[in-house]
Amino acid sequence: MTHPISRYPVPEINDLPDDIKQMALAIQEKVGFVPNVFLALAHRPEEFRAFFAYHDALMEKDSGVSKADREMIVVATSSDNGCQYCVAAHGAILRIRARNPLLADQVAVNYRKADITPKQKAMLDYAMKVSQRAEEVGDADFETLRGHGFSDDDIWDIGAITAFFGMSNRLANMTSMRPNDEFYQMGR
Amino acid sequence: MTHPISRYPVPEINDLPDDIKQMALAIQEKVGFVPNVFLALAHRPEEFRAFFAYHDALMEKDSGVSKADREMIVVATSSDNGCQYCVAAHGAILRIRARNPLLADQVAVNYRKADITPKQKAMLDYAMKVSQRAEEVGDADFETLRGHGFSDDDIWDIGAITAFFGMSNRLANMTSMRPNDEFYQMGR
Amino acid sequence: MTHPISRYPVPEINDLPDDIKQMALAIQEKVGFVPNVFLALAHRPEEFRAFFAYHDALMEKDSGVSKADREMIVVATSSDNGCQYCVAAHGAILRIRARNPLLADQVAVNYRKADITPKQKAMLDYAMKVSQRAEEVGDADFETLRGHGFSDDDIWDIGAITAFFGMSNRLANMTSMRPNDEFYQMGR
Amino acid sequence: MTHPISRYPVPEINDLPDDIKQMALAIQEKVGFVPNVFLALAHRPEEFRAFFAYHDALMEKDSGVSKADREMIVVATSSDNGCQYCVAAHGAILRIRARNPLLADQVAVNYRKADITPKQKAMLDYAMKVSQRAEEVGDADFETLRGHGFSDDDIWDIGAITAFFGMSNRLANMTSMRPNDEFYQMGR
Amino acid sequence: MTHPISRYPVPEINDLPDDIKQMALAIQEKVGFVPNVFLALAHRPEEFRAFFAYHDALMEKDSGVSKADREMIVVATSSDNGCQYCVAAHGAILRIRARNPLLADQVAVNYRKADITPKQKAMLDYAMKVSQRAEEVGDADFETLRGHGFSDDDIWDIGAITAFFGMSNRLANMTSMRPNDEFYQMGR
Amino acid sequence: MTHPISRYPVPEINDLPDDIKQMALAIQEKVGFVPNVFLALAHRPEEFRAFFAYHDALMEKDSGVSKADREMIVVATSSDNGCQYCVAAHGAILRIRARNPLLADQVAVNYRKADITPKQKAMLDYAMKVSQRAEEVGDADFETLRGHGFSDDDIWDIGAITAFFGMSNRLANMTSMRPNDEFYQMGR
Repeated sequence: MTHPISRYPVPEINDLPDDIKQMALAIQEKVGFVPNVFLALAHRPEEFRAFFAYHDALMEKDSGVSKADREMIVVATSSDNGCQYCVAAHGAILRIRARNPLLADQVAVNYRKADITPKQKAMLDYAMKVSQRAEEVGDADFETLRGHGFSDDDIWDIGAITAFFGMSNRLANMTSMRPNDEFYQMGR
Repeated sequence: MTHPISRYPVPEINDLPDDIKQMALAIQEKVGFVPNVFLALAHRPEEFRAFFAYHDALMEKDSGVSKADREMIVVATSSDNGCQYCVAAHGAILRIRARNPLLADQVAVNYRKADITPKQKAMLDYAMKVSQRAEEVGDADFETLRGHGFSDDDIWDIGAITAFFGMSNRLANMTSMRPNDEFYQMGR
Repeated sequence: MTHPISRYPVPEINDLPDDIKQMALAIQEKVGFVPNVFLALAHRPEEFRAFFAYHDALMEKDSGVSKADREMIVVATSSDNGCQYCVAAHGAILRIRARNPLLADQVAVNYRKADITPKQKAMLDYAMKVSQRAEEVGDADFETLRGHGFSDDDIWDIGAITAFFGMSNRLANMTSMRPNDEFYQMGR
Repeated sequence: MTHPISRYPVPEINDLPDDIKQMALAIQEKVGFVPNVFLALAHRPEEFRAFFAYHDALMEKDSGVSKADREMIVVATSSDNGCQYCVAAHGAILRIRARNPLLADQVAVNYRKADITPKQKAMLDYAMKVSQRAEEVGDADFETLRGHGFSDDDIWDIGAITAFFGMSNRLANMTSMRPNDEFYQMGR
Repeated sequence: MTHPISRYPVPEINDLPDDIKQMALAIQEKVGFVPNVFLALAHRPEEFRAFFAYHDALMEKDSGVSKADREMIVVATSSDNGCQYCVAAHGAILRIRARNPLLADQVAVNYRKADITPKQKAMLDYAMKVSQRAEEVGDADFETLRGHGFSDDDIWDIGAITAFFGMSNRLANMTSMRPNDEFYQMGR
Repeated sequence: MTHPISRYPVPEINDLPDDIKQMALAIQEKVGFVPNVFLALAHRPEEFRAFFAYHDALMEKDSGVSKADREMIVVATSSDNGCQYCVAAHGAILRIRARNPLLADQVAVNYRKADITPKQKAMLDYAMKVSQRAEEVGDADFETLRGHGFSDDDIWDIGAITAFFGMSNRLANMTSMRPNDEFYQMGR
């Protein structure tokens, strides 16, 4: 009953366009395996390139929102969106970045009861609002977050990460993208 | 930022009524620690006794629904109810009973994409319906489950386990019951 | 078009295990008939015993929440869960305990517009939150209820009654448990 | 803690415009009291006249949908809309028209488990769809109802009654309209 | 793929009862065409008369809520109810009455982000609450609106217009009522 | 009461990085004005570049889904997400590409009642499912769409466009991005 990586064709690494192949090999070098999202999205090379450019613009840069906190946003909203891939993969990264083996599972099940600070809870409240009902976001949300010490550019980061992974969650669910088994064990 | 076991007073093991103390020591003997639910619910000894009598009547007996499948029901519905304790504790038991380190996390995030059989998916579809909108349960649900080979008594078990853990999820959330750290690592 | 007591087999009173038979006869002695929940749940004697032990631990004891108010919690949440049996049976008990022939119907349709005190409305607001989204229960809910004069143990009672009858509602809906006709007329 | 008839001013019968006064006296003659909806809506005489003209056009005429079934539509949808007035008043009329003391309470709590025919259940399924998500009504709904023997004009009646009482429910809730105590006892 | 005016028979103007025919001709004289709602509802003359009497009682009279603001209520709630006819027809009237070609589309998509005053936003917040969950309307809503300068009779108007068009939206959706093409262009 | 383009700082065109400035000037040349999304997202040049690369990969290429149909997907899902910018801008493009002045407004209010083919309705049903509950997407959805003549790659396009604009809707709502006034009039 094991599902394939994607319901769409998955290219062999050697059949990938060269730039994508280099990216896949670089990540394999770094973490020891090629995360399935690289294989599943490579079915569409143009979209692949834009996806990872966007991903890196949000997740790799410096920000007032720490890298661990950014992963926490991904885990909370991806769990709410029922996305196997993102919860498994970013849960692993969160465990590693936060050096905490419990946090990812806590945030995935119910961030309100997780071992986080009030500031982190406010961050995730906002992320969930952007995820579930962005049409209601307004000045009061910005006031609340500023009151916790977030700058307006931090608030953009929280919202944009949520929005980007909301797209990613939908892509993963429509392709039935399968997380690599390795993710479940990382950082525990 | 670590939460306590419960927002209510938690008795010392030596202060427990004798029958409850024996139960706590027996489980400690078996799994190596006292699961926090024993301590949190011991705040109310009468309710504790009824809770575990009910739990054992549903989870320890023989049934057409395997013990691993029963844990799967608990994990799927408890995750939907945002219950940290039940997902952590029964996720651990599911990993052990199914001898599968991935299944509990898959079922917690999105059982529709988990590595399960169509019969197990039908079982979880029904459990989710009992959990979310039992008022709509009707003959058609029974027909569907019978078509997958479940007897009417199996269907009672699926529904009763869902109903019992729906209560348990609400108790855990209203007391902010904390899972023991040990659960997160078991069976991986 | 009259439905049977349960979609599952209903034992004859004389075929019941002796302890259950004594309970059924005692209640018959007291109210003049055997409430169908005794017959429907007797299909599973072990579960029956735990169910009523739990029920009595919550509903028969002394508490800062009056017996009439406890019935009000049952009626409000059971109506929201679409449970014929619990609304009919506990509506009857509420009419009797509150000596008020209108209150049960008011609470069943919309407790916010019922003839109740602000303290009772706060109690039912909390019960509905535990019933519908216990995962969001937090400190602010406890502060609100304490402000109305509830102790933390009263708050446990409100939540635990809600949780227990949430289970009961699901059991009644999955078995299509039929209320005795007598309930509809009691206390009017 | 008894609420007034309406949160808006309620005119004395003798202060009503003559045509409205005659309507109020006629209904008082017929049922023994003036239903509060006559007093609450008389705050706005023009709206009052249109309201009752519409009401009578839908509820008093001949139709393939019996008068009892029309009341059943009102009770089911008004209960779902949390409308005290309409459930109490039309529950009373339903008990009388159907010569059945249980049916109104059954339909108010969960029409799916009420003692009704499959044709009546299909009627209420459609009424609930018009009430909750009319934007999704389409050809398939008409096919289903025709299959149960409803004509297209019957289907108009079911939908229009639902729509009219959806308005009525909102008016009653915004004015906190109180049902007369007499309704609760009628037809039991 | 052009839909007809209604899924029900639509009478010829010359076959209409005389009072209805005069109404249709009068509106045709005024706006240059007969709005389809006159034809679709004329299938039921008694209901037609009550409908328009009610409509005019709410929409033509003087009120503390301006005629443009009343149209805004219709557009916001009708869009939320997915009603083609009411959004097209009352969007056109709103553009004309507010002398603003953008406002109707803004309000239809998301009134929270429209070019409106805080008082108008409070008005629409209340209208949406009456539309979506009138059972929760209470004193706090009245306090909020009074704080923005609305009288209690203004609040009745806001709620009653919402309730009336909630009915109208359901009628339009159950008949698949088609807006006249002319509406889309008016007032731009 | 006119809102600014964005709640974040909006750069002058001459202050933009050169590649972004060229893009803005090229679109200005083509449509006569710079759409506000170019200015609002230019607050974050790296994200801007990835956003438009992704946009063009989905919207400018050849596909079994026509360009007009792709715009229809954007309008239907963006309206459901309450996004002023995307409904105004892509509504304009849809009117132009479909050479139909009514279609965009119909699809924005209720695509189920729009003048579209059954194949287009199936396409939008799927887009709405990906938008609202992608976690439930499964084989049955693919079977339905294949039955309407869509290839698996067409289905990817439908889902990926929905996912991308779901991100875009969230970005627009979190920044309160304002549509250019010109959009409302184009193609009517």
